[in-house]
Amino acid sequence: MTIKNIFYAQSGGATAVINATACGLIQAAHQHTDQIGKIYAGQNGIVGALTENLIDISEESEANITGLFHTPASAFGSCRYKLKSLEENRQEYERLLTVFKAHQIGYFFYNGGNDSQDTTHKIAQMSEKMGYPLVCIGLPKTIDNDLPFTDTCPGFGSVAKYVAVSIREASLDVACMSATSTKIFILEVMGRHAGWIAAAAGLATTTENMPPHIILFPEMPFEVGNFIAKVENTLSRFGYCSIVVSEGLRTRDGKFLTNADLHDPFGHTQLGGVAPVIAHLIKRELGHKSHWAVADYLQRSARHIASKTDLDQAYALGQNAIDAALQGKSQIMLTIERLQDEPYQWRVGEIPLEKVANAERKMPMEFINEEGFHITEPCRRYLLPLIQGEAYPPYVNGLPDYVTLQKKIVEKKLS
Amino acid sequence: MTIKNIFYAQSGGATAVINATACGLIQAAHQHTDQIGKIYAGQNGIVGALTENLIDISEESEANITGLFHTPASAFGSCRYKLKSLEENRQEYERLLTVFKAHQIGYFFYNGGNDSQDTTHKIAQMSEKMGYPLVCIGLPKTIDNDLPFTDTCPGFGSVAKYVAVSIREASLDVACMSATSTKIFILEVMGRHAGWIAAAAGLATTTENMPPHIILFPEMPFEVGNFIAKVENTLSRFGYCSIVVSEGLRTRDGKFLTNADLHDPFGHTQLGGVAPVIAHLIKRELGHKSHWAVADYLQRSARHIASKTDLDQAYALGQNAIDAALQGKSQIMLTIERLQDEPYQWRVGEIPLEKVANAERKMPMEFINEEGFHITEPCRRYLLPLIQGEAYPPYVNGLPDYVTLQKKIVEKKLS
Repeated sequence: MTIKNIFYAQSGGATAVINATACGLIQAAHQHTDQIGKIYAGQNGIVGALTENLIDISEESEANITGLFHTPASAFGSCRYKLKSLEENRQEYERLLTVFKAHQIGYFFYNGGNDSQDTTHKIAQMSEKMGYPLVCIGLPKTIDNDLPFTDTCPGFGSVAKYVAVSIREASLDVACMSATSTKIFILEVMGRHAGWIAAAAGLATTTENMPPHIILFPEMPFEVGNFIAKVENTLSRFGYCSIVVSEGLRTRDGKFLTNADLHDPFGHTQLGGVAPVIAHLIKRELGHKSHWAVADYLQRSARHIASKTDLDQAYALGQNAIDAALQGKSQIMLTIERLQDEPYQWRVGEIPLEKVANAERKMPMEFINEEGFHITEPCRRYLLPLIQGEAYPPYVNGLPDYVTLQKKIVEKKLS
Repeated sequence: MTIKNIFYAQSGGATAVINATACGLIQAAHQHTDQIGKIYAGQNGIVGALTENLIDISEESEANITGLFHTPASAFGSCRYKLKSLEENRQEYERLLTVFKAHQIGYFFYNGGNDSQDTTHKIAQMSEKMGYPLVCIGLPKTIDNDLPFTDTCPGFGSVAKYVAVSIREASLDVACMSATSTKIFILEVMGRHAGWIAAAAGLATTTENMPPHIILFPEMPFEVGNFIAKVENTLSRFGYCSIVVSEGLRTRDGKFLTNADLHDPFGHTQLGGVAPVIAHLIKRELGHKSHWAVADYLQRSARHIASKTDLDQAYALGQNAIDAALQGKSQIMLTIERLQDEPYQWRVGEIPLEKVANAERKMPMEFINEEGFHITEPCRRYLLPLIQGEAYPPYVNGLPDYVTLQKKIVEKKLS
């Protein structure tokens, strides 16, 4: 058997655990030096392949490779770069395969979301057409949890935990201030097209009436009257109101509230951030001041409060990718299969890439309660296992000791 | 010696560790049942005394008391309520002492910021005038770190740690995305009048050139030209730019930027949140899109990432409060005294309340570097000890197991 090299790349928005997948993959590959040669990683994802900027993993210290396990974001650099279709830009695919050939790449692993699975699929097709043998395996990653055929996407569980922990903490804060000061707190979370992350905040409600009291999902068109009535009712029952809002919240006609024509009390339109829009709306309608937070990147990079389950799954995918490749599997995306809810049992599975490419997984409407402001029991049953366990990074001098790779670029062989 | 009861109250903005002070105080008091009777806590701070709503600590389970150590926010409820001067509202002070007398309160502990120390001092004066013996001890608490005579205020160290950890993580995120996507990240932190919290973010820069690259302090008047030039320079050097901005940022004429007349690219004025103002300014001047986060309550309630040093100090103050009271001390605020920087050594000290009342501690200008966008070595030397150590709360089912007290109100004796 010829010894071939690996090309691994990270794509799209960063997560707290994507480097754990890289760590699993590299450590597993190191067990098979009889079949696997060098491991290269794309500098800034697939762009690194197109520009022949390949990071040589063998130049990294053992400590750095181990440290990937506890380091958030994409350690090799990521990219937002979607390859066009084969018809539109055949040259780009040819260029990729030329680079792979020049560096004797026999294994291609692409760690990303929907677009990346699509790209992996196209590269697989192209390599077949060109008669260049290439194992192509997609590895799921996205905080949006919108990949189909997998129980969850690594990265999501950690955001879910961050959001649930944060709203629990901030709700205690607003509750204790509410007698004489701020009575309303609003947390804006990510998820432009699906409410998975907003739903995760609902896990903080472990017993009835616990905050958050209101979750605004992108799936539920925003109605000012309903919402304000719910806020009033919550205030009268509990004296305070804790709200989680998805950045993807829309009006009935599909307009994002972040850009909608909602005026604050001073007649100004609010741009960027839906939390301040909601805050100003409450001020206008009820006269109450709110405190609001926008978690933005904090939520998806928060390795300090990562879910151990999420981390274990991310690492396992990396390890299994090598096993699958060496078993001659290709044109698949690895998945997480749920075997049972409680206690949660899972294993790594697989799905043909052609089925995944560009398919999207929406949040089921039965995960949102009838009133439209909270999650249901089936939703809780689905989400709860994903935030289980803590896996703290090591600290030095009070701060997490995240690694920075050397990222030494391999000598170019092409022009 | 007559056995007298305790009245303890929490005041002002919540912190991640104020309940650790309560925990220390209660546990120490329980060691002295020969001198201390009941422990009452004010429901919603001093308001609880005025309205005779006293929470009976003896009704709480042992587990709840122990759990205070790891529970953020003010477990007994807090308040924003400043008593007027003795001249303006003598009745209010008389009412307080009437309530204290009715419940045989001999020890008054007030856990709060500047206003609370002032209140404690006035109550002490009033009790002397009225010939009612009352031990009055102030316990510092404020995330703003603006109390004088103490090395730090419990609560601040944990916010400092949260902010430094968060900006380190989010900076990794924007760095890895910067080649093909977002290049700028902005984190807004608290501190309306002083840059202590913003400065703490500078701790994430453990070696030169590490992010955050720019810190916008309330102490430094904001100059658009200077700032934009610094952003451009940072982008050209590192390819990305990580920014921390204090909510208290002002223009040269003293106007808060949150309300300043800075227009976004669409001609709209931005209200609430200075991070979006900065983001829109960068978009207008340089054309770059930014990601921005507003930490708000998340930062001060984040018990999950509390500083162990901060927590230990908060607890020690509670314990020492009882010791001081039983030694016959009164009219003092307990303080943290720094004995040395490295390794950090501290002990609990004290200062007469009359010296503290309404005095404010500003951040020294020598803590900001010459350029005005980062901290200096003396600042680092001061701040670094305060974020040392982790003290994770217990988790149940993936979430921190924070306690909720019974808060049983003692039977009223007054009308």
